[in-house]
Amino acid sequence: MVKVGIIGAAGFTGAELMRLIQSHPAFELHVATSDSQVGKTIASTNPTFIGLGEMCFSAHDDARLFECDAVFLAVPHTVSLDFTPSLLSKGISVFDLSADYRLQNAEVYEQWYGKAHTSVDLLASAVFGLPELKRAELLGAQARFAEGEAVLVACAGCYPTASSLAAYPALAAGMVAPPIIIDAISGITGAGKAASERTHFCFANENLEAYNIGAHRHTPEIEQILGLEGKLVFSPHLAPLNRGLLATVYLPLAQSAKTFGGLDGITECYRDFYRDALFVEVLAAKILPRTASVVKSNRAHIGLALQESTNTLVAVAAIDNLCKGASGQAIQCANIVFGFAEDAGLEAPACYV
Amino acid sequence: MVKVGIIGAAGFTGAELMRLIQSHPAFELHVATSDSQVGKTIASTNPTFIGLGEMCFSAHDDARLFECDAVFLAVPHTVSLDFTPSLLSKGISVFDLSADYRLQNAEVYEQWYGKAHTSVDLLASAVFGLPELKRAELLGAQARFAEGEAVLVACAGCYPTASSLAAYPALAAGMVAPPIIIDAISGITGAGKAASERTHFCFANENLEAYNIGAHRHTPEIEQILGLEGKLVFSPHLAPLNRGLLATVYLPLAQSAKTFGGLDGITECYRDFYRDALFVEVLAAKILPRTASVVKSNRAHIGLALQESTNTLVAVAAIDNLCKGASGQAIQCANIVFGFAEDAGLEAPACYV
Amino acid sequence: MVKVGIIGAAGFTGAELMRLIQSHPAFELHVATSDSQVGKTIASTNPTFIGLGEMCFSAHDDARLFECDAVFLAVPHTVSLDFTPSLLSKGISVFDLSADYRLQNAEVYEQWYGKAHTSVDLLASAVFGLPELKRAELLGAQARFAEGEAVLVACAGCYPTASSLAAYPALAAGMVAPPIIIDAISGITGAGKAASERTHFCFANENLEAYNIGAHRHTPEIEQILGLEGKLVFSPHLAPLNRGLLATVYLPLAQSAKTFGGLDGITECYRDFYRDALFVEVLAAKILPRTASVVKSNRAHIGLALQESTNTLVAVAAIDNLCKGASGQAIQCANIVFGFAEDAGLEAPACYV
Amino acid sequence: MVKVGIIGAAGFTGAELMRLIQSHPAFELHVATSDSQVGKTIASTNPTFIGLGEMCFSAHDDARLFECDAVFLAVPHTVSLDFTPSLLSKGISVFDLSADYRLQNAEVYEQWYGKAHTSVDLLASAVFGLPELKRAELLGAQARFAEGEAVLVACAGCYPTASSLAAYPALAAGMVAPPIIIDAISGITGAGKAASERTHFCFANENLEAYNIGAHRHTPEIEQILGLEGKLVFSPHLAPLNRGLLATVYLPLAQSAKTFGGLDGITECYRDFYRDALFVEVLAAKILPRTASVVKSNRAHIGLALQESTNTLVAVAAIDNLCKGASGQAIQCANIVFGFAEDAGLEAPACYV
Repeated sequence: MVKVGIIGAAGFTGAELMRLIQSHPAFELHVATSDSQVGKTIASTNPTFIGLGEMCFSAHDDARLFECDAVFLAVPHTVSLDFTPSLLSKGISVFDLSADYRLQNAEVYEQWYGKAHTSVDLLASAVFGLPELKRAELLGAQARFAEGEAVLVACAGCYPTASSLAAYPALAAGMVAPPIIIDAISGITGAGKAASERTHFCFANENLEAYNIGAHRHTPEIEQILGLEGKLVFSPHLAPLNRGLLATVYLPLAQSAKTFGGLDGITECYRDFYRDALFVEVLAAKILPRTASVVKSNRAHIGLALQESTNTLVAVAAIDNLCKGASGQAIQCANIVFGFAEDAGLEAPACYV
Repeated sequence: MVKVGIIGAAGFTGAELMRLIQSHPAFELHVATSDSQVGKTIASTNPTFIGLGEMCFSAHDDARLFECDAVFLAVPHTVSLDFTPSLLSKGISVFDLSADYRLQNAEVYEQWYGKAHTSVDLLASAVFGLPELKRAELLGAQARFAEGEAVLVACAGCYPTASSLAAYPALAAGMVAPPIIIDAISGITGAGKAASERTHFCFANENLEAYNIGAHRHTPEIEQILGLEGKLVFSPHLAPLNRGLLATVYLPLAQSAKTFGGLDGITECYRDFYRDALFVEVLAAKILPRTASVVKSNRAHIGLALQESTNTLVAVAAIDNLCKGASGQAIQCANIVFGFAEDAGLEAPACYV
Repeated sequence: MVKVGIIGAAGFTGAELMRLIQSHPAFELHVATSDSQVGKTIASTNPTFIGLGEMCFSAHDDARLFECDAVFLAVPHTVSLDFTPSLLSKGISVFDLSADYRLQNAEVYEQWYGKAHTSVDLLASAVFGLPELKRAELLGAQARFAEGEAVLVACAGCYPTASSLAAYPALAAGMVAPPIIIDAISGITGAGKAASERTHFCFANENLEAYNIGAHRHTPEIEQILGLEGKLVFSPHLAPLNRGLLATVYLPLAQSAKTFGGLDGITECYRDFYRDALFVEVLAAKILPRTASVVKSNRAHIGLALQESTNTLVAVAAIDNLCKGASGQAIQCANIVFGFAEDAGLEAPACYV
Repeated sequence: MVKVGIIGAAGFTGAELMRLIQSHPAFELHVATSDSQVGKTIASTNPTFIGLGEMCFSAHDDARLFECDAVFLAVPHTVSLDFTPSLLSKGISVFDLSADYRLQNAEVYEQWYGKAHTSVDLLASAVFGLPELKRAELLGAQARFAEGEAVLVACAGCYPTASSLAAYPALAAGMVAPPIIIDAISGITGAGKAASERTHFCFANENLEAYNIGAHRHTPEIEQILGLEGKLVFSPHLAPLNRGLLATVYLPLAQSAKTFGGLDGITECYRDFYRDALFVEVLAAKILPRTASVVKSNRAHIGLALQESTNTLVAVAAIDNLCKGASGQAIQCANIVFGFAEDAGLEAPACYV
């Protein structure tokens, strides 16, 4: 068994990592840290974790982290900077769920996250963790790891994952004339575990809201993945459900849709693109995805529609923000780096209801 | 008291009309029809209606409809065609919540609703019921009514109401270079009262979905209001809440935002536009609306944001789809036509939670 | 207009008071205090309050409280003790939504609330605010008020209101052999506005839980109303909805149900008991209440069923915990004391959906 | 691999069986029937089932049912009577999720289900499928199966499972003086997949209701398991969530709680009782269960509280009504009969959120 650790295990993505690791055939949870829960048995904080027995949350400086083969960082943005260099320097691979090593440009990082990047040298070798779009880089990391090198994977964020999966094939095929618009809706787990008026049941329930339009930190990340710096609008929304993220992406076509074979041709193009992607399903033309069909799984469903009058392709992607949008994707990346089956521990389908 | 009738009172908008009429100072419910509930006391179908005492649902051909001063039609699209001409011919004003008299072009109607229009002659005099944008026409109807004429008001649909309130001031000010994109999310009441897999609690709950992208019947209605035939994308979504509709409208600016005074200038422009609109509130720049703040009221909240890199204005409107998006708006239109205070019976604010 | 003040206006019950007072024909909100929001315009904290214009939250020691005819206390338990004596001494009537003057026995108060009662002398004259069961006392308060005396009404809690309305008629008719069991379910507003893991959307949503069984502070209050000290089990639950409280009360019959005319006879007895109660509806035998039918109204619906094999009457009551269970009931009590129509400002029916 | 079939696979419990069988190490789905979906690929009815490839729903008379080692019946009550005798006669073991073979007394069956039982002879050998309480019988079935006999397991219903797990240890220890009261709350999946006003999102959402008090079909089943014919009240409720069932059981103690060691002693007794039960967790004294902690798992959590004044033990059980309350339990029973690990395919823990 491969020993893995989690720093920041008491939050939503940390808990999701623990859930997935429990079902993983090769990963064994060796240490789980939480600054707020140090010393408590994990199971005592929530009976869901009863399978972890007497294992306790430890402090972020637990020396057993250095006994791990890999460490998952499920800490807030800017906090991963504190842990990553020392882990790597001791030969431990890092799968970072924060944004700290996602942006290649340290100035852009500082601009959006309000803190100077403290390990700029690591950005060049950090691999962006979105396997369907960055497979070559992840296979490179796999090779380096096989040779004994500790690797750093900066796992993609939830909105960037869904948005990019929906937009990328059309962009890569040269079908699109930017700018593009990304309108996305997230369940409330996307707002994190911190209790506030905004996450209070009675304010989030029976409510829809837009937030941070034109100012959400995921904007530069999506721009980087899609190569569309300054050429997209990103507009996130919250809706009253726990898990689920739906991204509706508006892609103005560069030429008439007929040039690309109409909606059927474009659908075929997407299917070709994702032919080997275990977790991505391109639905039949005009069938649009439901988040409920992917929740609590690592799957992404993509549906396509065409607004002929304005010659706009509308690509919609549905994922579970905590799984494919965070912890499941981190496990998927780790599976690739370690040379396991890409879906090891991630096979479970969503529930019908 | 003014005697009013409702045809199709057992559906969601019919029930909302009954709720509002019960609190109205001048309207008195004289007759309420339902083809599925004929003869049942209204209160027996739901204890909410206990205040209506022993009043029963009657058949659609109840002669007492012709004793009314006004009749609200809360029937499905294409069914209003069956009732409107005869009511008008007997001098009874009609407030139609269906789409049957909204589109000025009968061919467009047939194309989207699959049925030839059977009273094309009425389209010319039908007034579009969206008071904030069509006040002059409604005041015209008021004058005609005062002279004894029966008037026909084709009340705006829910998506068109929210979308148009968000987009219109910028379009009217010449700020926008179409095409525009309208991305909207509705609560499940928007899917109607018919029980189906789609409206089953267990499928709608904990789910987000897009539907009918590029093919929703409200598309031509929005195009007509905004004068943007063939120049918009309309993309509706469902989220798990009862009431509430949020429309996020992407308006590419025709010139630099600075030309219009930036976001503050544009906000001021919107506030000017709605200065006399009792029910519309333009929030401070960058404050985005929440549907919970307007639910069960006739209010609309509008928030504005600017995506500077692409020079796009994002206007977001929140309404209650059953109230301002349907029955409340019909009452508002009727108040204008009858010369009552525009907010008679519609004063109640939303709940805090 | 009667000038009223609210101490603790920023919480859920305070906000509900402001909503109801806005629609009240005779009450005018003169001052609203909040220790956490001092100086902010109320409307800026939530656009729902836009109708209050530029009115600000003030501090708890705002001298304008003493200009009011009545003050509503919407503060946490034990905090009302700080305000009530001084208000009364200045001739201002107090409607207290906390538990501080509900229990006649100061020792029981201290035992359950962990604080010695500091104005025991007021307990004798405090009137328990549950009009359907304490009408004579409230009419007494009305008479005293009419003679210029400031009165203190200790409004009933949410669980006690629903439970007592369900249980009282059968107890009063001598039908019941205690002990009785009260199993109740509340929406999440019942847990208050404080943000915590328990009220976080993602923990409250899609969850059912029991809490504080045998240890909830409402237990002695229900025992006092029903005269069943030590003879009841009270078991509260939380379910994922904003508003609504359903109390299912198990009443072992003292004699065979036939003695009381069976379920029909018992239903008739309940209807007789509530014949003059504006807000209470006893549903037909075997029809059980839905909270959705009373939410956002001041109504209570009661349904009755009989488990013949064990000779147990099951009485179920549905109320809105924030309205009939708190703020609506306080307004109702104030209406009685001031001699207004009992339902002034409380006429609005619930919504159908 | 063991070939299994499902009759009635398109409903909620059928879909849950398909989900669990996909993750099962030894069961292989050979045939899935649905009278409403014959000929459709299962995946086309919901993308959740994409892992089933091109497999189609077939008709209830599909001959491949007779090629199975076991068939799960996920059909409505009274319909299992049509399939069970023929399957058994051909040597195929049956795991019936309906109520048809649960009640030992055919007259009681007819009284509650309105249909004469047509295979009374099978009742004697049918094993009641609630492993924690009927292990000996299931091991007997295991032995008979090992000798080549086809066995019939009548899996317990959702309410009976939760209620009995909560009540049984105290009853078995002689602590209880009946009658007892069972107050239970179910998520909406408990109301089945049929679309109706009751299951419409907008009526079920933001609502609590009691139903069928004293008249629910699970009453005689619970009476039979607990040996309490005519000595219990069962009162079911619906709350707005998909999955989850919470049963609060009121058990009057036969002697003072001290006799049993107080709450700690009783908790110890429950823990002893369930010491070898893989799926049952007795929480620490006074900790009450949350359904969210067991949802989408086969686990049951039990919490205990004591109302000292009335000497009542309150036992609360939380399960997932579709999993431990239906399909998961059927798989658990099949695992035992087939001699597999009891938790084969059922290891997955619930999610944290």
